[in-house]
Amino acid sequence: MPGRLVECIPNISEGRRAEVIDAVAAAVRDCAGVRLLNVQSDQSHNRSVITFAGDPDAAAGAAVALMRKAVELIDLRTHKGEHPRIGAVDVIPFVPLGQTTMKECTILARRVGEMVWSETRVPVYFYAEAATGPHRVRLPDIRKGEFEGLAAKMRLPEWAPDIGDPRPHPSAGAVVIGARKPLIAYNINLRTDDLRIAQSVARAIRESSGGLMHVQAMGVTAVSGLAQVSINLLDTARTPMARVFDLVRTEADRFGVTIAESEIVGLVPLDTLLDVARAYLRLREFDRAQVLEVRLME
Amino acid sequence: MPGRLVECIPNISEGRRAEVIDAVAAAVRDCAGVRLLNVQSDQSHNRSVITFAGDPDAAAGAAVALMRKAVELIDLRTHKGEHPRIGAVDVIPFVPLGQTTMKECTILARRVGEMVWSETRVPVYFYAEAATGPHRVRLPDIRKGEFEGLAAKMRLPEWAPDIGDPRPHPSAGAVVIGARKPLIAYNINLRTDDLRIAQSVARAIRESSGGLMHVQAMGVTAVSGLAQVSINLLDTARTPMARVFDLVRTEADRFGVTIAESEIVGLVPLDTLLDVARAYLRLREFDRAQVLEVRLME
Repeated sequence: MPGRLVECIPNISEGRRAEVIDAVAAAVRDCAGVRLLNVQSDQSHNRSVITFAGDPDAAAGAAVALMRKAVELIDLRTHKGEHPRIGAVDVIPFVPLGQTTMKECTILARRVGEMVWSETRVPVYFYAEAATGPHRVRLPDIRKGEFEGLAAKMRLPEWAPDIGDPRPHPSAGAVVIGARKPLIAYNINLRTDDLRIAQSVARAIRESSGGLMHVQAMGVTAVSGLAQVSINLLDTARTPMARVFDLVRTEADRFGVTIAESEIVGLVPLDTLLDVARAYLRLREFDRAQVLEVRLME
Repeated sequence: MPGRLVECIPNISEGRRAEVIDAVAAAVRDCAGVRLLNVQSDQSHNRSVITFAGDPDAAAGAAVALMRKAVELIDLRTHKGEHPRIGAVDVIPFVPLGQTTMKECTILARRVGEMVWSETRVPVYFYAEAATGPHRVRLPDIRKGEFEGLAAKMRLPEWAPDIGDPRPHPSAGAVVIGARKPLIAYNINLRTDDLRIAQSVARAIRESSGGLMHVQAMGVTAVSGLAQVSINLLDTARTPMARVFDLVRTEADRFGVTIAESEIVGLVPLDTLLDVARAYLRLREFDRAQVLEVRLME
């Protein structure tokens, strides 16, 4: 893999006007040294997730370019959507790839925060690994009150922004910038149409109700009609995919139900999949440099 | 992955004189557009395996450069070693990588054969997917009689070389060039020190004694003392690693023995490992472009 790489997944508060989404994505695509990987829009959320990657300097430049364009085109005073948000660009997470460390991503997030404030006058909060205090680690806590309640919230000393003046940008609100591990969206379909079984399995495996750390899960019904355990994996280095799969299998088995199939939604880091092979094949001392294609790119 | 790629794994008849091995490897390393991935020498075999990769044109040039240097430095008239061989460069297999097809590798092998004859006057046999007849598909059949019996063998009409005069190069013999799928060296250690169990499992799983197609296997004792099923996987697209692992587990279980661990020796294509994840996670519609690092290199 070429040098240091980071992934950046900004969420912008526009999921309906294609010309706006395209213009914001183009601001990233036009930056040298980054690669636009994915643009996914949700109409009911009125929100788009833009994924790109590149070396840290290029990614910083692209994040600021995206910010500039989104602030120009998105006005939160007229924005409606189901998903909570405080800014035209709501959140900018940086994720370390390859040999990049979380520490580098944290430093990068802080640097991008300075650049964003200086170029757009949108105040900045740092979250997750880049948070400046424990009450600012979780995104929902920072977002609480949303854009509409932001002016009042920012006047509270504990909610002063990390960078910038303690009042929202008139049209663009504030932005949350941080560093986190990759998040993997993973669905497991059960061989049943009984939604309650998927809900029960989801409760059994997720962190919030006594299950595995770094796992979020809920039971839903898939398009196929099968009951689905819909999962976010927040740290597959600590809580690997194979362990989650096997626990779903065990918990579903309590109902006499088997796993029909599973599905990775969107992108997944190579290491997560190599860990799957390591786990099931009981591989010892397998190094990612043994993957031919990885070796070719070193 | 950048454009069309092929892997090339020439075997040269020198495993002892480091300066000769280095000089031959350097002939590859000095070629633009290819990457030297591995050099592995065996003293008792008196043979080295050189692995490199690049786009087809660059790989062809590097194969010829290697051939030229090996013919200059290796004289089979004074060569002794345990491994059968007919040439200073004994065999040059090309393996398709990424989107490259086997057909392209077959054409490449034929083209390299012409270049090798024209530049070095070493006669050429084509084997495996590039073979010109069924009796020339298997390497051991072509090698039978070795360098010492080659002059007599080449006078037989059915063993005339595919390219070049029907007599060996005086010091370099002949060379076998072809195209094949990747070969993966894979060892599974059983939780026992009873060699006979590993031998019995090897017999059960390998093609030659009624087991799985595209699988070679033998029972040996690992350095750790555990009984080991030592395996070559010749076509993991058709006979995937997960199937081999699970059959070893089943066959070992007949003896009440479990699998302690397994080990991939050397390089393995990404697709082989993705198939492991697909099999055990029951993944549907998973595309290699969903691997973040693959996406970054497209």
